[in-house]
Amino acid sequence: MIEAPFLLYLGHSTDPVGIKTSRGLAEFRRQDCVGEFRHDDCPLTLDLPRMSMTEGAAAGAKTLVLGIANPGGTMDPELIEDASDALRAGMHVVSGLHERLRDVPELVAMASALGLQLIDVRDPPADLPVGTGRPRAGRRVLTVGTDCSVGKMYAALALTEGLRARGEAADFRATGQTGILVAGGGVPLDAVVADFISGAIELLTPAREDEGWDVIEGQGSLFHPSFAGVSTGLLHGAQAEALVLCHDPARLQMRGLPERRLPGLAECLAANLQVARLTSPGVRAAGACLNTSSFAEDEARALCAKTAHLLGLPCTDPHRFGVEAIIDNLLCPERSAPATIASR
Amino acid sequence: MIEAPFLLYLGHSTDPVGIKTSRGLAEFRRQDCVGEFRHDDCPLTLDLPRMSMTEGAAAGAKTLVLGIANPGGTMDPELIEDASDALRAGMHVVSGLHERLRDVPELVAMASALGLQLIDVRDPPADLPVGTGRPRAGRRVLTVGTDCSVGKMYAALALTEGLRARGEAADFRATGQTGILVAGGGVPLDAVVADFISGAIELLTPAREDEGWDVIEGQGSLFHPSFAGVSTGLLHGAQAEALVLCHDPARLQMRGLPERRLPGLAECLAANLQVARLTSPGVRAAGACLNTSSFAEDEARALCAKTAHLLGLPCTDPHRFGVEAIIDNLLCPERSAPATIASR
Repeated sequence: MIEAPFLLYLGHSTDPVGIKTSRGLAEFRRQDCVGEFRHDDCPLTLDLPRMSMTEGAAAGAKTLVLGIANPGGTMDPELIEDASDALRAGMHVVSGLHERLRDVPELVAMASALGLQLIDVRDPPADLPVGTGRPRAGRRVLTVGTDCSVGKMYAALALTEGLRARGEAADFRATGQTGILVAGGGVPLDAVVADFISGAIELLTPAREDEGWDVIEGQGSLFHPSFAGVSTGLLHGAQAEALVLCHDPARLQMRGLPERRLPGLAECLAANLQVARLTSPGVRAAGACLNTSSFAEDEARALCAKTAHLLGLPCTDPHRFGVEAIIDNLLCPERSAPATIASR
Repeated sequence: MIEAPFLLYLGHSTDPVGIKTSRGLAEFRRQDCVGEFRHDDCPLTLDLPRMSMTEGAAAGAKTLVLGIANPGGTMDPELIEDASDALRAGMHVVSGLHERLRDVPELVAMASALGLQLIDVRDPPADLPVGTGRPRAGRRVLTVGTDCSVGKMYAALALTEGLRARGEAADFRATGQTGILVAGGGVPLDAVVADFISGAIELLTPAREDEGWDVIEGQGSLFHPSFAGVSTGLLHGAQAEALVLCHDPARLQMRGLPERRLPGLAECLAANLQVARLTSPGVRAAGACLNTSSFAEDEARALCAKTAHLLGLPCTDPHRFGVEAIIDNLLCPERSAPATIASR
């Protein structure tokens, strides 16, 4: 549906978390990314060649990915101007923002005139069902978090790869715009109408009889007052047998809410298990994933060890240390040594 | 916005709970209801004169209210045919279903030709903000429930009237289609996009400095796997100082899910208080409301007494016994006798 290769948009972003969609593609589909577009005031980079729109198109990019996020997901005039430039250079434009490309008449007219596509990955499927919470076959694991943007997608992708490496059938189930772009499909959960949150997840992860796994990307946090409704419906729809808790130890305040501290990890895990039990009475915690990118390696190992001890669960940074200990626990909980840290 | 008086639609409904929007208008705006429209197979009545569409219009009805609810909110061909008949008879048509009147081309064409309005009360406001959970001024009380359709709107309306009767400034804040029709405004929360659930409630109940109350209509239940995401966002957006738990003691299974039992009342209240504390750390329970319409009066009194004892809170059926004990507790918690049952 979305034509590769991509030119990744960073725009004027100054917040590393705000470019997570572009970063996700750079990380998980790097072979499909020819370069990055950023303005002079953008101090961030994905270590891809910096290109103008015309340079990107000349280098073979078929699609500009507006891979930035901002609270509310608005599309400001500068973003629209940049999207226009991408169209003029001959690229399709794909966006994961709440405000839709198709609602900007000048872009619609230009894309139509040039025979190019505007793709809003945040458009949810039509005719979503209401969730039922009825038991269904299949093994499902869901990543949950202390906050937004703490590595839930990354952990889910790493767990999917880890399960496959063990010979298990496993599918990553995307619930956000970045994951959808990486996976090529999914449900943009935060754009679903409130009555259908859990139903959308039941649709995304239907019963499966092949003994394989659905690894479901979590969203938001039960402790984030903006988005906990989404997280709650996701927990109920997922009907997961196991949760993996994701956390960024460098994060001191909830994303977008500087006055609000993060919850404790044990408290957060307990609350998630409590909510999950409504549709999955036997749900258990399988491990924790930390994003330790702000820490030196010895500090990162110490943080994982401390968290493993605190929670009595395997804890790792999936990027640095892999997810083997969590996979062990998922596949064979009784044989897993709770406090082991994975290492490559 | 919606022109009275009304003809209330019951259609082919056989489930008393399914006609709650029509019933809400019949109860709370009876002076504005000229009659009810029902087919021969509908065994229900609101004790209004039964009228055809033309009889309703002749009796002065300006608007047909499609006041029925069904899981998923679909608009079937018979409903569309009945709406067409209402237009032909000269009435506007208002609907609270998920599927929109404006998405039925034949109705749109007919209404336009006849100069009549089609009104979808489930259209949420544009440009909703993301919730913040930041403390704001004002006194807010929220009704919560063990299930959907257990009397949360009724209780909120009764509490609003009760507070006003004591000389307090109080406003009913509607979050569902019935409440919106009764109040003439509000936010249809179940139709809001998931990311904006708590933000919509913050918008509906902004800071107020007049010492008055916002009495907020609850939705769904934390224990209903279809809709708990809505309930969670509502709890966080409401930032209520007090919750009132609503329950139907005749309800044995969760609405729409016959295999699922209702939660215990104490468990349900504790879970609601826990979720509410994220944005309102001092939140407390102010009472419980039972819908005892299936029980004789002595049984109803016994049920209220038993529940009051169980929860250590005033418990009443607002319809039968008023809400005085809960108002006492709201206004003066330290002076309230916990196990008192209100009586008129």
